[in-house]
Amino acid sequence: MKPLLAITMGDVNGIGPEILAKALANPIVTQCCRPLIIGDAAHLEAARGFAPALPEVWAAPAVAEPAPAHVIPVWDAGVPAPPAKPGTLDAAAGRAAVAWVEAAVDLAMKGTAAGMVTCPLNKEGIHRAGYTCAGHTDLIAQLTGTLEYRMSLFAGAMRVVHISSHCSLREAIELVTAERVVESVRIAARALRGLGVALPRIAVAGLNPHAGESGAFGDEEVTSIGPAVEACRAEGIDCSGPYPPDTVFRQLRDGAFDLVVALYHDQGHIPVKLIAMDEGVNVTLGIPIIRTSVDHGTAYDIAGAGVAREHSLVAAITLAAQWAKSGWLQRSFAKGSAV
Amino acid sequence: MKPLLAITMGDVNGIGPEILAKALANPIVTQCCRPLIIGDAAHLEAARGFAPALPEVWAAPAVAEPAPAHVIPVWDAGVPAPPAKPGTLDAAAGRAAVAWVEAAVDLAMKGTAAGMVTCPLNKEGIHRAGYTCAGHTDLIAQLTGTLEYRMSLFAGAMRVVHISSHCSLREAIELVTAERVVESVRIAARALRGLGVALPRIAVAGLNPHAGESGAFGDEEVTSIGPAVEACRAEGIDCSGPYPPDTVFRQLRDGAFDLVVALYHDQGHIPVKLIAMDEGVNVTLGIPIIRTSVDHGTAYDIAGAGVAREHSLVAAITLAAQWAKSGWLQRSFAKGSAV
Repeated sequence: MKPLLAITMGDVNGIGPEILAKALANPIVTQCCRPLIIGDAAHLEAARGFAPALPEVWAAPAVAEPAPAHVIPVWDAGVPAPPAKPGTLDAAAGRAAVAWVEAAVDLAMKGTAAGMVTCPLNKEGIHRAGYTCAGHTDLIAQLTGTLEYRMSLFAGAMRVVHISSHCSLREAIELVTAERVVESVRIAARALRGLGVALPRIAVAGLNPHAGESGAFGDEEVTSIGPAVEACRAEGIDCSGPYPPDTVFRQLRDGAFDLVVALYHDQGHIPVKLIAMDEGVNVTLGIPIIRTSVDHGTAYDIAGAGVAREHSLVAAITLAAQWAKSGWLQRSFAKGSAV
Repeated sequence: MKPLLAITMGDVNGIGPEILAKALANPIVTQCCRPLIIGDAAHLEAARGFAPALPEVWAAPAVAEPAPAHVIPVWDAGVPAPPAKPGTLDAAAGRAAVAWVEAAVDLAMKGTAAGMVTCPLNKEGIHRAGYTCAGHTDLIAQLTGTLEYRMSLFAGAMRVVHISSHCSLREAIELVTAERVVESVRIAARALRGLGVALPRIAVAGLNPHAGESGAFGDEEVTSIGPAVEACRAEGIDCSGPYPPDTVFRQLRDGAFDLVVALYHDQGHIPVKLIAMDEGVNVTLGIPIIRTSVDHGTAYDIAGAGVAREHSLVAAITLAAQWAKSGWLQRSFAKGSAV
């Protein structure tokens, strides 16, 4: 049985409806999962011009309603979107986008959906809808009641878990603790086992140039990162480092490791975004549900133009489906450990 | 007239002699400059087996002595190297390497050489030779009496000037000041004009994720980096930013800019080292002489094995020759400005 994935439409004034239409027109997507779109059927239908192979769309009156065969069910969770105004910030569109994320999280938490995949929403739109969280990921963490979660990027061989994400670089340095590094390595190891990597090789980057050169340029490698690596090894994880940040991502690209734990947002984002063309996937690890996302924004500047590329969304869906089929999350929770 | 470049051999127990022999065997090198090797002729001769096309080597008794035609002069500055012990840390080798750097700086400062190019030396070797500086670049800055200098990487389209280099990330954040950013942009603009780029397009990276999102994640973009960019524009430099760090290097690679000013060592080193294969060149800007270097170390692990690649050295020599021919430095100093 193919896993049911709840896929949110995001901000309808961005490229969400267009990339959804294009992704759903791709047989890879409908072969790997049963997509349930949480969004507005009229907006998806309106994007058909960009993706003639889009299967028939069906506005599901309720999520429990079984969809007719070969039809894409779209459920608006009781919050239809306003008419499209491509490229325009609209509080009502923001409100709908947030409601859809809430509905998708709810379906995933209940187990109705095996996981969720998100199209981009506009942060300012979230704020106008009355939310104060820093963004999509933080909203989902809030909704799932998770305190310790990790923003990750997956793009081919480039797999990176960040020990912190949207905070200043100053704050990120303060978050470099042995505990956070250890927890990140554990989270990464479990996620990779969920992808079938039996003994994941995890590298931890240093914080300072040349990984500090034994304390010459900063001591975090000596006082917290190194001990964290040792602690993970003692748990039986194939973990090594801290490595000089300016060469470890090259080693990752070349296959020396399965994943790198990055110590701040840009340490991981710079190399992944430089190499990943369109296939980058943003993954939230540490939450009790499977959640993947495109790694780009609403792209208001090209919304409605028909030139948006759906590759990141297709990659996000297939990755979520792969995890869903593996039973990874269920096993992790059965063991009493966080994901 | 081809410019005379003083090329130091570096640590003789590393890959210096081998990459020198291979580079000198490449007609590109001898066509773009008159190389004067500051090192030990016997060690270069010993590397001939790795580079049969190496021209005849001549141990110059003094630097003033004119070299016979089609011969590579090698001057030991009165400090011959100890016998080779590939891959071994040796205080005497370190001492010779430092003496050769001092001699090359002296030749470049006097104008006898139009510029200098360095092969790698071992930092521990410098320390054993009684020096306390952090590395090669700092040694050269000391010898030239320069306080404000910038470590830069040039590799094809990837050109990056760093506002700081070998210090902890914590210290690097403290060095993010409007003054340092402005000076870095000026230094970068002059260096690019020296390469024939009439109106260089210089991008300044942000310090924080997403360049801080208008102060949401750190305020350095608002308080110092943004004002620095404005100040540079007011001086007539085509400067823009601060840009989100995780996309600006991709734009650089794709030709949107001629150079990026990076706000800390790894912000620039991660992307350049990920993309540059062998052609990366380390450039010291802000000093009163032309100095380029290979962007790798002594590679003790492969010293003497014959597998070292000379591409970075060839690129460093051709870049130094290009600058030397342009008269860039002379013009900069004639205008009374630092390089």
